[in-house]
Amino acid sequence: MPIYNAPTKDMGFVLHEVLKIHEADIPGYEELDAETTAAILEEAGKLSENVLAPLNPVGDKQGCTLENGVVRTPEGFKNAYEQMRAGGWMGLDADPEYGGQGMPYVLNIAVGEMFVSSNMAFNMYQGLTHGAYAAIHAHGSDEQKETYLPNMVDGIWSGTMNLTEPHCGTDLGLIRTKAEPQDDGSYSITGSKIWISAGEHDLSENIVHLVLAKVPGGPEGVKGISLFIVPKFLVNEDGSLGQRNGVSCGGLEEKMGIHGNATCVMNYDGAKGFLIGELHKGMRAMFTMMNEARLGVGLQGYAQGAVAYQNALAFAQDRLQGRDVTGAKNPDGPADPIIVHPDVRRNLLHQKSFVEGARAFAFWGAQMIDRARRNEDAAAEGMISLLTPVIKGFLTDKGFETTVLAQQTLGGSGFTQEWGLEQFVRDARITMIYEGTNGIQSLDLVGRKLGADGGKHVMAFFDMVKSFIAENKGADETLDAQFFEPLKTASKDLQAAGMYFMQNGMKAPNNALSGSYDFMHLFGHVCLGLMWSRMAIAAKAALDGGTSDEAFYKAKLATGRYYMARQLPETATLLKRIESGADPVMELDAASF
Amino acid sequence: MPIYNAPTKDMGFVLHEVLKIHEADIPGYEELDAETTAAILEEAGKLSENVLAPLNPVGDKQGCTLENGVVRTPEGFKNAYEQMRAGGWMGLDADPEYGGQGMPYVLNIAVGEMFVSSNMAFNMYQGLTHGAYAAIHAHGSDEQKETYLPNMVDGIWSGTMNLTEPHCGTDLGLIRTKAEPQDDGSYSITGSKIWISAGEHDLSENIVHLVLAKVPGGPEGVKGISLFIVPKFLVNEDGSLGQRNGVSCGGLEEKMGIHGNATCVMNYDGAKGFLIGELHKGMRAMFTMMNEARLGVGLQGYAQGAVAYQNALAFAQDRLQGRDVTGAKNPDGPADPIIVHPDVRRNLLHQKSFVEGARAFAFWGAQMIDRARRNEDAAAEGMISLLTPVIKGFLTDKGFETTVLAQQTLGGSGFTQEWGLEQFVRDARITMIYEGTNGIQSLDLVGRKLGADGGKHVMAFFDMVKSFIAENKGADETLDAQFFEPLKTASKDLQAAGMYFMQNGMKAPNNALSGSYDFMHLFGHVCLGLMWSRMAIAAKAALDGGTSDEAFYKAKLATGRYYMARQLPETATLLKRIESGADPVMELDAASF
Repeated sequence: MPIYNAPTKDMGFVLHEVLKIHEADIPGYEELDAETTAAILEEAGKLSENVLAPLNPVGDKQGCTLENGVVRTPEGFKNAYEQMRAGGWMGLDADPEYGGQGMPYVLNIAVGEMFVSSNMAFNMYQGLTHGAYAAIHAHGSDEQKETYLPNMVDGIWSGTMNLTEPHCGTDLGLIRTKAEPQDDGSYSITGSKIWISAGEHDLSENIVHLVLAKVPGGPEGVKGISLFIVPKFLVNEDGSLGQRNGVSCGGLEEKMGIHGNATCVMNYDGAKGFLIGELHKGMRAMFTMMNEARLGVGLQGYAQGAVAYQNALAFAQDRLQGRDVTGAKNPDGPADPIIVHPDVRRNLLHQKSFVEGARAFAFWGAQMIDRARRNEDAAAEGMISLLTPVIKGFLTDKGFETTVLAQQTLGGSGFTQEWGLEQFVRDARITMIYEGTNGIQSLDLVGRKLGADGGKHVMAFFDMVKSFIAENKGADETLDAQFFEPLKTASKDLQAAGMYFMQNGMKAPNNALSGSYDFMHLFGHVCLGLMWSRMAIAAKAALDGGTSDEAFYKAKLATGRYYMARQLPETATLLKRIESGADPVMELDAASF
Repeated sequence: MPIYNAPTKDMGFVLHEVLKIHEADIPGYEELDAETTAAILEEAGKLSENVLAPLNPVGDKQGCTLENGVVRTPEGFKNAYEQMRAGGWMGLDADPEYGGQGMPYVLNIAVGEMFVSSNMAFNMYQGLTHGAYAAIHAHGSDEQKETYLPNMVDGIWSGTMNLTEPHCGTDLGLIRTKAEPQDDGSYSITGSKIWISAGEHDLSENIVHLVLAKVPGGPEGVKGISLFIVPKFLVNEDGSLGQRNGVSCGGLEEKMGIHGNATCVMNYDGAKGFLIGELHKGMRAMFTMMNEARLGVGLQGYAQGAVAYQNALAFAQDRLQGRDVTGAKNPDGPADPIIVHPDVRRNLLHQKSFVEGARAFAFWGAQMIDRARRNEDAAAEGMISLLTPVIKGFLTDKGFETTVLAQQTLGGSGFTQEWGLEQFVRDARITMIYEGTNGIQSLDLVGRKLGADGGKHVMAFFDMVKSFIAENKGADETLDAQFFEPLKTASKDLQAAGMYFMQNGMKAPNNALSGSYDFMHLFGHVCLGLMWSRMAIAAKAALDGGTSDEAFYKAKLATGRYYMARQLPETATLLKRIESGADPVMELDAASF
């Protein structure tokens, strides 16, 4: 069975030595001293290691079952869910007015990484609830909030998001689900939704579905979509559960991974729904929390890589095969542990340097969300909106790649179910697809975010990197050569790509759109290069300050050096691809493929 | 259910217009005129499309079962196996002396691609038999050949290769299986082997196991390993089946993919075995056919990519979502087919340009094997030995990547079992692991093959590319700019990497070993760049000659152009990684990972 060790120490390093959250002028952060966060992370870590991780292969093997409309989750899920509730984890960053703990989002993300690493399928149940909570919190009426939020924050009720229909996923303008106005002010919802994660299950007493539907007579396309609350059980005036609503699970999807989460076909058959937010403004309401939702999926991507890496490392330190070419390292044994071999180390460092860079990137993103929200800081809002598709697309592509590399470290054992690596690969795969495929992320980045507010945010990003380098270079030759120089080169590649889009994308948008995916990756590399540079500075400071834990900080520098020397140079190839423009992509006639 | 269309036309193009096999001075090739190969490919294609492909999801779903020592293959496998036998496909390139058809290996590879694309797990049963056949054919005594080969060529008996044990895979020197000499000249084999593909099943009447074991008192390590024939049923003097031997299946591995193939734990309990080849020379005997075996796995890698691409393309031409940014292409429909979108095209062209390049590379490799074998051409033998790890490692890494890209084209549908893409991903994954992990391939390439015969073969490769460019450039500006120039750049990157190894690997081998994996990929890109250049010349010739099928040849040029412009530039990054040397890889202490 796979292992999991909560990386609380590394999280503390990122939060307090790199991001220095305890010094940030963000309301709520003043509570986040190193001791407090460590205590919270330790608790979440224990739950992850002892309760969630052991259930992960169980959930994969058993999956969910549907019988007579009832969905049963795998053995042990209900018990674990109750422990999550009892610990107050579901409302960690929720509004205290509705029973939440009101903690900053950055802490939610740190805790979330551990929950996801240890059991992604399980954690999706509460993840979806959190998304539905956030939409109701932002757009619901006071009455709706009072009716639904306390129980959702508690976890005794759960939530879902219903967007996709068989004929439309990305192109939601084609939605057919209808919402007919009723005399009592409610709507009668009819239609079929697919791929609804946690659409039906036995973990909560009620399920609050958020459903996109069209009210007849409204505008065409996405401008005629509204958002509705459709509870599985209607709620009586006193808050107790009333009659069963006209919504049911029509089937479970058989899929590659995340078997422990029920992916449902949801049938709405004249179900009673309640408009949330404004009529025809459903898309806006559904996507208000998009930055958080997509950051959460980016987190899932690297979190699977993180646990996969831990298992690859344990295997590499234990498995004896062959000898170190420079001399035996385990002369008394039959062979050396495979971590002595350069190609095994290359593979492990590829994983490790991505995972730790990604963690810093995600936490930094979460900090920006806190700043945007809690300080009402427009610059932070603009920056995180720009970076959100990068976090989602890059961290899930590379996170998946990392699980595959980790699987490779185990050789044949990686292909067997026994060792668990293949589950991480199958589970991680979905993160590149849902919450907007990574292709869609790249379109969002290049087609929308780059030019937003006159390109102000991307210019701010470039300025930030430039100032960062200017402020830090010159103090240490090694850091200059190993970190800041490569970062500068990569950042120049990114600027050159942006310039190419400016000069060629205006007259022919396909010149930009053909390079959008590469641009997303280029951007991701620069962000991780920046994070590694920041981590290197923090590690250097600790070493200079006479830390008692030299090994940790030296490992940080060595791991960062690997990223800068061997991952970051990919930016050159990405730029070259982008600069080849639309012709190689658009030339071939669709019928001649 | 996924589709499969046998790519016989593209195969004919590679065989007759690019490789021009009908003009090659290789014994046996004179029979391979375009009509003959087309007829054979058509037949194999029909079997693949109509019999094997429909069984592929069945095999995945049902898997194999073990009950009281008996392994049952999925429903329909036995029937398909009999059709394969009846068609004479199992002995296509086998020695006519033992009932084979004696066709060149290149044809076997072309036919094999279709069998693998349509049902990889099924095709492994005969693939393993072919490997065992080849070893016995090369090293068996006349009596052994007469006893085993005719039935193996027919398929009524099958074969396996038994190498791995629980504590050793790559490092076979650690093998513990014992072979005790008996008075009758046979050996008593005792030990346990794992991950034995097709180790036990119900498709054939007898299973001929080839087993690596150690005779007590022999040299330590790999120098003391011998190879034995251990039939499931002993064979009587008249060729009929005798008593059951002491070998049994102790368990089936639960694994990520290739569920239709039984991966067995094989227990040898004083089983009667017969030495094949010389005592203590078992490694050599087992690996005689290594080039073929590894080329066969490279083929599996891209063949999964090939069928995955076909399904991605069909989806992209059918699925309506969004509008072409330059104007609707399907104005009467609710949306345009997604193939209009640049990022979808990028993804499809990435798949297509790899698959077609890989096909040409594999066929070219097979032609070299034919030349080495049939002409006893040492230069061809040296070249294919050099290229074998590249074919295996690069084509399986990129083949897997292609299946993942194809899955991505389908969005959420790609994650469901219904569409079949996720099976291609799971099945393709093993190709990067077995028959020597890709890390081992890269060590073989850099540690052994580069320096073999004083570096003669790699020099011959560089000379070949150089001459090819010199001979062909100048005739057509477009080909020069789009194909030969990029090839030259990539080839220079490869030479620079080789030079780096020469200059730095001698004094510190880790400088070479840390870059071996990147070198393997760099080499693979140059080979595909060469193949695309050769295909471009052939396509240009057809267009200049007034072909009636302009669309096909124009598509070839456009697809090749994509590869050269957008895949080949990866060589720059790979070179940069290699030139970063051992330090970033070796610096971190094993305990600090």
